[in-house]
Amino acid sequence: MHSRLEALQKGMRKGGFHWLILTNPANVAYVSGFMGEDNWAVVGRRDSWLVTDSRYTEQAQKECACCRIVERTEGMVKTILNLIGNSGATGVDDAMTVVFYELLRKKLTGRVKRGGRLVEDLREVKDSREAGTIREAAAVAWKALARSLVVKIGMTEGELAGRIEFEMRKLGGKPSFDTIVAFGGNASQAHYVPGNRRLRKDDTILIDFGVKWKGYCCDMTRCFAVGEPGARYEKAYDTVLEAHRTVVAKLRAGASVKELDEAARRVIMDKGLPPYNHGLGHGLGLEVREGPVVSSKAKGVLKVGQVVTVEPAIYIPGRLGIRLEDDYVITEKGCRLISGGSRRVALGRLPRLRAR
Amino acid sequence: MHSRLEALQKGMRKGGFHWLILTNPANVAYVSGFMGEDNWAVVGRRDSWLVTDSRYTEQAQKECACCRIVERTEGMVKTILNLIGNSGATGVDDAMTVVFYELLRKKLTGRVKRGGRLVEDLREVKDSREAGTIREAAAVAWKALARSLVVKIGMTEGELAGRIEFEMRKLGGKPSFDTIVAFGGNASQAHYVPGNRRLRKDDTILIDFGVKWKGYCCDMTRCFAVGEPGARYEKAYDTVLEAHRTVVAKLRAGASVKELDEAARRVIMDKGLPPYNHGLGHGLGLEVREGPVVSSKAKGVLKVGQVVTVEPAIYIPGRLGIRLEDDYVITEKGCRLISGGSRRVALGRLPRLRAR
Repeated sequence: MHSRLEALQKGMRKGGFHWLILTNPANVAYVSGFMGEDNWAVVGRRDSWLVTDSRYTEQAQKECACCRIVERTEGMVKTILNLIGNSGATGVDDAMTVVFYELLRKKLTGRVKRGGRLVEDLREVKDSREAGTIREAAAVAWKALARSLVVKIGMTEGELAGRIEFEMRKLGGKPSFDTIVAFGGNASQAHYVPGNRRLRKDDTILIDFGVKWKGYCCDMTRCFAVGEPGARYEKAYDTVLEAHRTVVAKLRAGASVKELDEAARRVIMDKGLPPYNHGLGHGLGLEVREGPVVSSKAKGVLKVGQVVTVEPAIYIPGRLGIRLEDDYVITEKGCRLISGGSRRVALGRLPRLRAR
Repeated sequence: MHSRLEALQKGMRKGGFHWLILTNPANVAYVSGFMGEDNWAVVGRRDSWLVTDSRYTEQAQKECACCRIVERTEGMVKTILNLIGNSGATGVDDAMTVVFYELLRKKLTGRVKRGGRLVEDLREVKDSREAGTIREAAAVAWKALARSLVVKIGMTEGELAGRIEFEMRKLGGKPSFDTIVAFGGNASQAHYVPGNRRLRKDDTILIDFGVKWKGYCCDMTRCFAVGEPGARYEKAYDTVLEAHRTVVAKLRAGASVKELDEAARRVIMDKGLPPYNHGLGHGLGLEVREGPVVSSKAKGVLKVGQVVTVEPAIYIPGRLGIRLEDDYVITEKGCRLISGGSRRVALGRLPRLRAR
């Protein structure tokens, strides 16, 4: 926590900022250790504070490592003005909403501007403890999935999603995002919300899920066949698997994110199938979506210590959806699977579930 | 949906806005019907659009009632500039983040400013259909709670919270916020995160929970005793109950939110106990927290059709926490309980649970 603050303060000096106001809970957690919401952090070149209110004071006292805790009794902006006084260029993070931004600009004429992605950039590169926590999150997620995969013909998507999240909670975790369970053609909606569709004989299941554990997120997707999925589904599954493996073989520090995305698309198009309409992957950590973006529209290359998802997919609207997703930490010479569980859940041939 | 748009367009003309850009998912849902995230709505004086991307197009086509759907292939701001062209004062909602706000201001020099709370103000007053949906949400929530309240000595807070949310999901709902389950002294943290604390003999349980149903939220809190809670707990419970009832007797259109809060505090202080350190209540609807604010720091009076929580509480840090919360719709002459379930869950004497 201390070295993070130092790195940030170095960036602030470089950017000409005396103060940085952080509102994104993930940014706040990164510099302070506080894992709740609704609290802001104020970082100066020497001091830093977590600005909380009485609802969170007990939690803040337990979690904050190296910044002072201010329990505010007035509005957030008023409290912050008291802390940072009358001078010094002040940056705000990208997540600040316009209502507070305009208020700050009014009170601190000429001193406030966007602080850029100082904290977000630091967050992109994980240290080994952060990577280890994501690995733990994945272990919990797989355990929860294993306990939930007793499927019955007639059960609803919502019921299965709920069971997975219940098992996460029993293990002390919580979902890192709303669990997606999509049966059959519903899986063609990449951000599907599980509903009342019931599981049928010879159905398919897509599960996109993740656990938040000690503040850190994992994010995986698997597809399953219940009974006979049909040749078209099997061909698409094998193609997505091949696309995934093709990317993993190229995943290393220095790899162009654009070229990685293109490599996955090429595998899919070469089979005459339509490639996914989203990015190939994204970073994850304190947020389930953070930098870097891995897509055909993004620029740049991967760095050692970044953790990214790889999630190529094929969607045929209303008919079929297949996405295979794992999380990897980037190393000098390649990558390491960080969302690995037992061999049973490793990416491979289409897994089949026997329904009761 | 149509009359909402008309009311909004009237407000826009009055405020001098030609365009309004909505980014808060609840605002977007209110004007478009779209219940997902990551999509923005653009409202003109005549036309309105939902700006989506391919991940959400299928869902948008199903849910949007009276605005056109634009599937964007470029950045959000670029797509919006294409829609609204080169002229007209443009307002943005309060939830827009500074990163997009600054981008818009750069592209639309002198045209962009905060649009105020046009949509939020409309959302505060619910029509009978909205109130009915919140009532349905509460019915689902009570059913989920009833199915979950089989408590065992030794179970963890996280397990009970997970079970409640699982039952919500099985009923087709989802949590409107992270369910709070706090055993014993943990309940003194108003925004406690359920952990691994295990249920003991002669323990107490606070459960703060709600369901999101067809986009609308409910929010209730109950306290329970397992075995003998002790005289101090019982006295505090009865006091919070009295404070709650005192407020409900005064809850009507025209009542001052500040005076309502003070009435609850007075009951608690008259018993020599410390009153809660948060507001007495808040509005709820598409968001679990929206206007109006009911607290000692707020101004104004309640209006017919507003839906508010009433949640007085007593906290003694690390020792005891009691909060009793229900949701009410404001009428001309009083209020109607909107989070009512069976008689068994109605607010009343301290409910006792038998642990297995």
